[in-house]
Amino acid sequence: MTLKTIAVDAMGGDFGLDVTIPGALTFLQQQTDAALILVGDETKIRSALTKASASMERITICPASEVVGMDEEPTSALKNKKNSSMRVAINQIKEGQAQAAVSAGNTGALMATARFVLKTIAGIDRPAIAKFLPGRNNHVTLVLDLGANVDCNSTQLLQFAIAGSQQVAALSPENIRPRVGLLNVGTEDIKGNAAVKETHQLLQRSNLNFVGNVEGNAIFTAEVDVLVVDGFTGNAMLKSIEGAVKFVGTVVKEEFTRSWFNKLAAIIALPTLKNFKRRLDPRRFNGAIFLGLRGVVVKSHGGTDATGFCFALQEAYKAIKADSITKIQAGVAQQLTALEE
Amino acid sequence: MTLKTIAVDAMGGDFGLDVTIPGALTFLQQQTDAALILVGDETKIRSALTKASASMERITICPASEVVGMDEEPTSALKNKKNSSMRVAINQIKEGQAQAAVSAGNTGALMATARFVLKTIAGIDRPAIAKFLPGRNNHVTLVLDLGANVDCNSTQLLQFAIAGSQQVAALSPENIRPRVGLLNVGTEDIKGNAAVKETHQLLQRSNLNFVGNVEGNAIFTAEVDVLVVDGFTGNAMLKSIEGAVKFVGTVVKEEFTRSWFNKLAAIIALPTLKNFKRRLDPRRFNGAIFLGLRGVVVKSHGGTDATGFCFALQEAYKAIKADSITKIQAGVAQQLTALEE
Repeated sequence: MTLKTIAVDAMGGDFGLDVTIPGALTFLQQQTDAALILVGDETKIRSALTKASASMERITICPASEVVGMDEEPTSALKNKKNSSMRVAINQIKEGQAQAAVSAGNTGALMATARFVLKTIAGIDRPAIAKFLPGRNNHVTLVLDLGANVDCNSTQLLQFAIAGSQQVAALSPENIRPRVGLLNVGTEDIKGNAAVKETHQLLQRSNLNFVGNVEGNAIFTAEVDVLVVDGFTGNAMLKSIEGAVKFVGTVVKEEFTRSWFNKLAAIIALPTLKNFKRRLDPRRFNGAIFLGLRGVVVKSHGGTDATGFCFALQEAYKAIKADSITKIQAGVAQQLTALEE
Repeated sequence: MTLKTIAVDAMGGDFGLDVTIPGALTFLQQQTDAALILVGDETKIRSALTKASASMERITICPASEVVGMDEEPTSALKNKKNSSMRVAINQIKEGQAQAAVSAGNTGALMATARFVLKTIAGIDRPAIAKFLPGRNNHVTLVLDLGANVDCNSTQLLQFAIAGSQQVAALSPENIRPRVGLLNVGTEDIKGNAAVKETHQLLQRSNLNFVGNVEGNAIFTAEVDVLVVDGFTGNAMLKSIEGAVKFVGTVVKEEFTRSWFNKLAAIIALPTLKNFKRRLDPRRFNGAIFLGLRGVVVKSHGGTDATGFCFALQEAYKAIKADSITKIQAGVAQQLTALEE
């Protein structure tokens, strides 16, 4: 059995080893054909593993002396932190030691480093940040870009559509023609700004299963499998949704603690409320994929806990198992040839 | 007592008179110093009023023979429907018969007609669609633009900030320096695309209470009173939020009907769940203001019911009462002078 190996930036995120080590150990229990390379301060990693009474089975430690700060400028990290846990973790992919890298560190630095080390797939100009978001009937929609590119032209948006479509097809073999929607201010063909109108035409000419313009609520209505959007708008949508879900949760909490009767109702409704909370738990959807690179790089939320970090590792594991990079490469080449004809 | 008069496009929206008439009658009961001009098919309006056993006190009927279709092109409506209920309702403001107009009709046509008939305030190039959205601690944030302008330059975004700030100050006299936030992909000053970076600098130089860049979740965190965003992104955010809140509601419903025990819990928790639902009821936040025009024009959601339509009328009423147009005019002039110095 060949092990699927993920390089972990063990020092990244708001809580570093306190989150990455327990998350990594849970992950290894769940996936018996996975191995991890823990990258960072060797002494500290060893001590964290000992504290957790972890066996060293399927674990390798790879030393890295530096850590990229959460607020560090991406260019500075790229230039001055060549031995950072983040950089060394990504290097593991390039050197063939790992098939994926996961980090909870600085998003900008991770993107800059991943692009620099791994390069983009032929035909893709810039990678996008992609994330599965949950909607009606347990459907998930892959939304991209979520903030890597604040200005996008139609060529880039088309590339996101192709890469996203291939990623979904790779991960769900029963869905070989994922429905692609283009985020717009209305569903009519003539809507939108110049870049979006151009993208609409490119998508119509492509071989993708393009279903047309959709509005922001399409994430939840299960009408598309891939939602293409520029990084500025995508980021605003993601943060708005996170804020809205959190706010609704607060209202639920406020209402169920408003009076002694409501508190009593809450006790009786506790299993239901817990299940409700679990279904919308952002940790279950943790792990954004940097799509378009020649390697699987997954960004975990910086403030997540061990459970959330484990989900990010699962996201990387699924991408390796689905051989998504090879499929995106083939898909991009095929789509671009079709468009040129 | 001078009556505050609102012209109502009685024929607009998905349900026309079935919604506008009961909504109008409820509104008149709630606001005893308000009067309504019901614009549309006189026979049908009279018949709807008779059916509702309405007194004609504070009600005038203004005949209009045409109706703008919900999918009609704005330019076509503007050119060919000069006697539409929408157009005639807006004319009432220009002719001094009403101080505001409310319509649940076609958004694009309403905006085009309102701009054509009323013109924009001096110093404002294009009006924006603005809406109060609810957040933590019963705070509301005025978000603009929500879709009138899919491409915005920094001058327009600055104008939105000024108009939005004046609107909030007019409506809440205790808040004379509303906090203005600029929607961005991060809070650092250097983030964003070119238009947003320029806007950031203009806002810093302005006399507004500019608190800097904020992310999409700022709508819910009560950190700003006015959130400035281009119409493309603003529309995507609004639709995403509406979709997310609806989705969370579906999950609550699904969980509380999953088993007989959960259904029992739901019965006990019913008052709590009802209050939860009421607090997030989109009808309570119905009514988008077209900000920057020389008159109060409010757009009701096309698919709302009488309760929702009544809230849209309240929004117009509050704007008249606060004399918001005069205040925006003065504010724009003052801010623009300050920026030129």
